[in-house]
Amino acid sequence: MTLLAVRTTTGRSQDGALTARARAVIPGGMHGHLNRANFPASYPQFFAKGEGVRLQDVDGNEYVDLMCAWGPMILGYRHAGVEAAHAKQLARGDCLNGPGPVMVELAELLVDTIAHADWAMFSKNGTDATTTCLTIARAATGRRKVLKASRSYHGAAPWCSPSLVGITPEDRANVIEFEFNSLADAERAAAQGEGDVAAIITTPYRHDGFVDQEAVDPTFARGLRALADKLGAALVLDDVRCGFRYDVAGSWEPLGVRPDLSAFSKAIANGYPLAAVTGSEPLRAAAASVFSTGSFWFAAAAMAAAVATITELRDGQGLAAMRAAGERLRDGLAEQARQHDLVIHQTGPVQMPFLRFAGDDDRGLVNLWCTETIQRGVYLHPWHNWFLSAAHTTGDIDEALRATDAAFAVVAASR
Amino acid sequence: MTLLAVRTTTGRSQDGALTARARAVIPGGMHGHLNRANFPASYPQFFAKGEGVRLQDVDGNEYVDLMCAWGPMILGYRHAGVEAAHAKQLARGDCLNGPGPVMVELAELLVDTIAHADWAMFSKNGTDATTTCLTIARAATGRRKVLKASRSYHGAAPWCSPSLVGITPEDRANVIEFEFNSLADAERAAAQGEGDVAAIITTPYRHDGFVDQEAVDPTFARGLRALADKLGAALVLDDVRCGFRYDVAGSWEPLGVRPDLSAFSKAIANGYPLAAVTGSEPLRAAAASVFSTGSFWFAAAAMAAAVATITELRDGQGLAAMRAAGERLRDGLAEQARQHDLVIHQTGPVQMPFLRFAGDDDRGLVNLWCTETIQRGVYLHPWHNWFLSAAHTTGDIDEALRATDAAFAVVAASR
Repeated sequence: MTLLAVRTTTGRSQDGALTARARAVIPGGMHGHLNRANFPASYPQFFAKGEGVRLQDVDGNEYVDLMCAWGPMILGYRHAGVEAAHAKQLARGDCLNGPGPVMVELAELLVDTIAHADWAMFSKNGTDATTTCLTIARAATGRRKVLKASRSYHGAAPWCSPSLVGITPEDRANVIEFEFNSLADAERAAAQGEGDVAAIITTPYRHDGFVDQEAVDPTFARGLRALADKLGAALVLDDVRCGFRYDVAGSWEPLGVRPDLSAFSKAIANGYPLAAVTGSEPLRAAAASVFSTGSFWFAAAAMAAAVATITELRDGQGLAAMRAAGERLRDGLAEQARQHDLVIHQTGPVQMPFLRFAGDDDRGLVNLWCTETIQRGVYLHPWHNWFLSAAHTTGDIDEALRATDAAFAVVAASR
Repeated sequence: MTLLAVRTTTGRSQDGALTARARAVIPGGMHGHLNRANFPASYPQFFAKGEGVRLQDVDGNEYVDLMCAWGPMILGYRHAGVEAAHAKQLARGDCLNGPGPVMVELAELLVDTIAHADWAMFSKNGTDATTTCLTIARAATGRRKVLKASRSYHGAAPWCSPSLVGITPEDRANVIEFEFNSLADAERAAAQGEGDVAAIITTPYRHDGFVDQEAVDPTFARGLRALADKLGAALVLDDVRCGFRYDVAGSWEPLGVRPDLSAFSKAIANGYPLAAVTGSEPLRAAAASVFSTGSFWFAAAAMAAAVATITELRDGQGLAAMRAAGERLRDGLAEQARQHDLVIHQTGPVQMPFLRFAGDDDRGLVNLWCTETIQRGVYLHPWHNWFLSAAHTTGDIDEALRATDAAFAVVAASR
């Protein structure tokens, strides 16, 4: 066992100063999912730089990043091919009076790549894409109700926000929840919809925060498909978080279950802001009938980045590399925990790992472990799935594992 | 009278080919506000390039642009200062595991610049910002209802989309409409809200499509402020479209009427995707309590572009130049119409001009005029307000006026 020294050397003085300034001009000091309040105290709030799989915080501390900007980074920060495509488009034009040719190229690429897709539409946020899917499904069916899995995250809009603060009962009036992986419960929810079900929306697997990730039961996936068909409702796959990491043709393609509509965002353009809805032929007319627009939704540069990203993932070895890196990380962590006599649960696809300590209800162990890990220059998350990228090499994973081993040692010693 | 020759020389072959390809992979061939279906047949759908106030379509036709990407462009396409700030940030990092220092700088700049602002939050779409304002107001008041002006555009979310296709009655259940500029009607709407009014949301002036724009009656603005205070509701100024063009401190600052919350987007970063909510001190705690996030909302490059854009507008002569260009355009168009014995109505602030021909109920005259104008290399809109920028010079306006003069001649000859 190597007890890797704590690497953080320059401290947190810049981060502290920025945090104090932020407290004055940003409510609560920060909003959103990357608010430092979500993390142990040793996590930095502000970052200066990203390159490959390395992040640098504002105090000059460097990290091997296993969070990938919460998903958007899939080929490495500042990936040469993506940056070149983006810069080339930017030099010509980005947000103009109409789209560039690249919008057509990207739509064609998605139709060629995503197995169920006959068409594509674009927006900026994952939430835009999931919400547009529901609007299209309602336009197609003339119905109101939507079935979704309990606790499943589909975005930050009033219909799906994980918080009820500032949300009205009417915002949720047409949402009926079911338990993920329980076809019986989905059927119960459908019956509750009383002939008024427009859509069933689901993530490819259960990737809720705080709890073990749960692979989809193929019987459940096929059952949802059949249930949607029986109801005459649209099956919507929310592939915002998982999309392009697991299978470039869509995350349920390995199961052979094709949705009617998919929502993509996050990794679609390696960090540039873009979201997409893809759909099958029967939904095309409904998609054409809805009002779907935004000031920056047709901007060309992010679309050029998406074409470069998806093409690289489709034609290159990135997905295999990401899977190999994920397996190496999972195996390494499992072995380390055994050596330190600690019981951990690792769940989720290896490309989107989740780790929990057994019996760690107050998250004391995972918080300690994360604190010790980040102080040794490796960034991972205490209660949300992490993300790997195609840029993570064997050397990066081994470097990360040296830090996690030392962190496990501290956790073991604390018990 | 100069009859300027039609300048379009290379035709529309590339645009036609892309349009045909788009029809196969994008529902209806295009979605959103810049769909060519909104325009006379001579308008191009796809653009290749933007530089200063010039646009080039995919067939190489060049235009003096009076639409400014529907608002985002405010300093000229590819403005050197904004591009440099954006590129510098991009080279370090954009979408990382946390925001960059520039998020704090931008929030501080907004608090310094926007008169009512004590804090700021960020997102990507104007719709994100208006919706977040309502969520904050509901969190602050524990109430549900929102008063908005009839037909007023506040974004593309289910609560406010101009289309009802795919929208449920529940999406609109908490929206009560009033007539813009009628305080009596706003008070009637407030009474209808029966003690459950969380917010009054309004645009700075009436900038609805298809109809004459309408300046806000200062008595109405002050009355809405007093009504919100009486109700204990938040006054929300939707400055998404107008913001930064009219008064850099907020579009109602010249009236001395300060909202509790403002929504900004479009021009905030000269075309880069960003939106902001600014708020006053009493709403800070509520703002900190709501769930407000998105995958790309904390990305640094667009924020760097916003800092450069707002600083330039605040410290430079751009706003005065934009106003002068707008006055020159308005005066020139008025004089040309008189000379051609045509009756037109020009409304809206000169920076966001709107033109209508008298008695043109089927829009035949304006469509002909726009067709003739765009064929002479000037891009403007037949039924939506146009946008000027700080980059429009006297020469640009005079060039545009030569085209509009020839177009007026064709309209006059057609009668």
